[in-house]
Amino acid sequence: MEEMGLALATDLYELTMAQSYWEHGMHGQAVFSLFVRTLPQGRGYLVAAGLEDVLRYLEGLRFTASDLQYLESTGIFSPPFLEYLAGLRFTGEVWAVTEGSLVFANEPILEVKAPIIEAQLAETYIINQVHLQTVIATKAARCVWAAKGRVLVDFAFRRTHGLEAGLKVARCCYLVGFAATSNVLAGKVYGIPVAGTMAHSYVMAFPSELEAFQAFARSFPERSVLLIDTYDTLQGARIAALVGQEMAQRGHRLRGVRLDSGDLLSLSREVRKILDEAGLTEAQIFASGGLDEWEIEALVRGGAPIDAFGIGTRMGVSADAPWLDMAYKLVEYEGRPVLKLSQGKATLPGAKQVFRFYDGKGAMARDVLALRGEQMPGGRPLLRQVMKEGRILGPLPTLQELRRHFHEEFARLPEPYKDLHSPAKYTVEVSPGIASLQQQLAISPRGAGPSAR
Amino acid sequence: MEEMGLALATDLYELTMAQSYWEHGMHGQAVFSLFVRTLPQGRGYLVAAGLEDVLRYLEGLRFTASDLQYLESTGIFSPPFLEYLAGLRFTGEVWAVTEGSLVFANEPILEVKAPIIEAQLAETYIINQVHLQTVIATKAARCVWAAKGRVLVDFAFRRTHGLEAGLKVARCCYLVGFAATSNVLAGKVYGIPVAGTMAHSYVMAFPSELEAFQAFARSFPERSVLLIDTYDTLQGARIAALVGQEMAQRGHRLRGVRLDSGDLLSLSREVRKILDEAGLTEAQIFASGGLDEWEIEALVRGGAPIDAFGIGTRMGVSADAPWLDMAYKLVEYEGRPVLKLSQGKATLPGAKQVFRFYDGKGAMARDVLALRGEQMPGGRPLLRQVMKEGRILGPLPTLQELRRHFHEEFARLPEPYKDLHSPAKYTVEVSPGIASLQQQLAISPRGAGPSAR
Repeated sequence: MEEMGLALATDLYELTMAQSYWEHGMHGQAVFSLFVRTLPQGRGYLVAAGLEDVLRYLEGLRFTASDLQYLESTGIFSPPFLEYLAGLRFTGEVWAVTEGSLVFANEPILEVKAPIIEAQLAETYIINQVHLQTVIATKAARCVWAAKGRVLVDFAFRRTHGLEAGLKVARCCYLVGFAATSNVLAGKVYGIPVAGTMAHSYVMAFPSELEAFQAFARSFPERSVLLIDTYDTLQGARIAALVGQEMAQRGHRLRGVRLDSGDLLSLSREVRKILDEAGLTEAQIFASGGLDEWEIEALVRGGAPIDAFGIGTRMGVSADAPWLDMAYKLVEYEGRPVLKLSQGKATLPGAKQVFRFYDGKGAMARDVLALRGEQMPGGRPLLRQVMKEGRILGPLPTLQELRRHFHEEFARLPEPYKDLHSPAKYTVEVSPGIASLQQQLAISPRGAGPSAR
Repeated sequence: MEEMGLALATDLYELTMAQSYWEHGMHGQAVFSLFVRTLPQGRGYLVAAGLEDVLRYLEGLRFTASDLQYLESTGIFSPPFLEYLAGLRFTGEVWAVTEGSLVFANEPILEVKAPIIEAQLAETYIINQVHLQTVIATKAARCVWAAKGRVLVDFAFRRTHGLEAGLKVARCCYLVGFAATSNVLAGKVYGIPVAGTMAHSYVMAFPSELEAFQAFARSFPERSVLLIDTYDTLQGARIAALVGQEMAQRGHRLRGVRLDSGDLLSLSREVRKILDEAGLTEAQIFASGGLDEWEIEALVRGGAPIDAFGIGTRMGVSADAPWLDMAYKLVEYEGRPVLKLSQGKATLPGAKQVFRFYDGKGAMARDVLALRGEQMPGGRPLLRQVMKEGRILGPLPTLQELRRHFHEEFARLPEPYKDLHSPAKYTVEVSPGIASLQQQLAISPRGAGPSAR
């Protein structure tokens, strides 16, 4: 996508508003805040992700000649405004939480401060990228939590919403602790370990399951994971065991078998028994097929002897919560805090900081949502400045570093908030500064203005 | 995405299986069938989409030097196999239904016939693209049906799963009858009309709502749609009416107002009254904010005086059904029909054709799922050959042509199947040819093979 120029990856109104701002000489500094209004049912936390894409987009933002030609062809924009767009660059600053951080309702994931045209234009891209990656990182983190240390592999690529989504899903999974992805492109682009087994079609292309397994074992003497449910799982397991024994005789090693259908709890037990009785105690059992955090949790609780899970579609589209109520809202213009009163969508005014407080053991206790300038002794500020005058500040963290960051953050979140069914509600307080500002503005909204009353 | 090379947009196992096929000299012709096993709850039909992307991918499929370098770096693949991959092209044929066609459970959307390595390798991309676009075209078609002729605009871009998904969503919406999209990039790439209004931030950046509306009206004297719910919707409507009257005095025209929160049914009535009383009978009312097909249906049934709907997130991620149980399954290898018996995932063997039968008035009556070679007099075959020897056959239909095709197809589907709550189940019969083949193979599966028993 990058190569086609991303400046047009925006909603039309961002550009029409920009033209109007430009015509009226409105180049004042605006602060926009990106946050999630409410957490989906059953979610106790969110894992923020997507910042790196946003920063690279902002640093590279420019309209190509063909972008401008297209805009001209719509008949909506004036030639002098298009000339202005040709020279437009993002010159502002960004404050953000590190990717992999835990955030809660109403907490800014990032804030942009820039001349209003620049900050406005970036809205669509910023929401689009942070939304997708936060949705997926959160869902994937729930799977990791449910798996209690068992290996997880991202199998979602075929049913993610496009290839780009597949790449971002693989990245977010790795960020929160998945071991690998089946997505080869993600392996190349992000350096994530790749993994895979075999498909039913492979088994079906051979005259018999035995011949299929034997052929695969010859091709991959050390990394064969045989898919055993094409016809009959237990019969498949016995054939795999036979092939595993043949491999052992050759000095090779059957890595494992995969179950992709049926009752995974009982099947995994029976298959384990078959493998063990054949002396293949080190051959692992992989499970896949419609899995999500609740299925994983049930299998782990039931003591299923499953070593690794392939997690696909339900995670890759975050099936139970495929979207978040994420918004990018103007909170300050020319130094004046502003707020919106729309029913059910009211916003908190002013540029912000989130302060996190921990208990004596280092566990997360509560957050305070404060104005950027407020002091909260003992609280750790979560938003750091990551862009200044349109340039990324310092080297971006690597994916490995972000993975470590998530791991450390998540360890500090007490278990009740991690529950997959009825998580406890984490406390986010609003600072005195915000509360008084909000009250003051709500009593006397700028909105209607005297002339309209 | 195109520029980075798409050959690695695949799951690792497609490549490991390919190496194994290659090592065993398995280059036989395989037929893979792409279909949806079951329709999601409440869906009476699917709108097939995504074929154009698949055909372009297949025609351009090749591994770049950097792809091969990456594969080599994994340590999984042998140098001679990588050399083979360097020369690999897709040389097979594709049969498919036209995009915008209605399909039902188990009906092939497309079938690929090619040497097994080529057909297998393409699995991930094919499912990924057809899955996303079929999910979205179906959801968007439901919105069009619910709107009963009112104008729909795609507002989903900011919360689609990535930019690529946003582009495909815009395309699918237009395919099924949306009037426009807010997605400027989709406007450029697909030539779809673009539309938009203004954001709350615009209103908030001015000292008052009146000044904001006046400024926008001066910038866009013919296309201003004023967002009136930033502070108080009815007050906003009165201010918009004032501005509309000012515009009329200047010989301009207020295009309309937009509601984005609250009870849209009652608000739209009150706002209509305010506009009418101000003499602005031609100013339209646009509604947006968490809309989906059920909300639209309720507003239309309630007689809400809404002229156009902006449809966003819930459509753009297909919130109630963000994925389909879509599979790409081997149904024939070297002329031998094959099937899978996995619990809950059994497949129908053989290359197929779908025959559609109509009643005397041209309405869809039933489909018959048949073997490719079977004759079904009176039935219209839905799958056409669209690729031969790796080349696209003839010019691809334009998006306008596909839009017309969907419109005509959809008009032939009787209303009970379109119901948004409890749609009737459309009849799809299995031909005698498939039934007997299935029975024959199920009795004597190829799977386990005598040597394993």
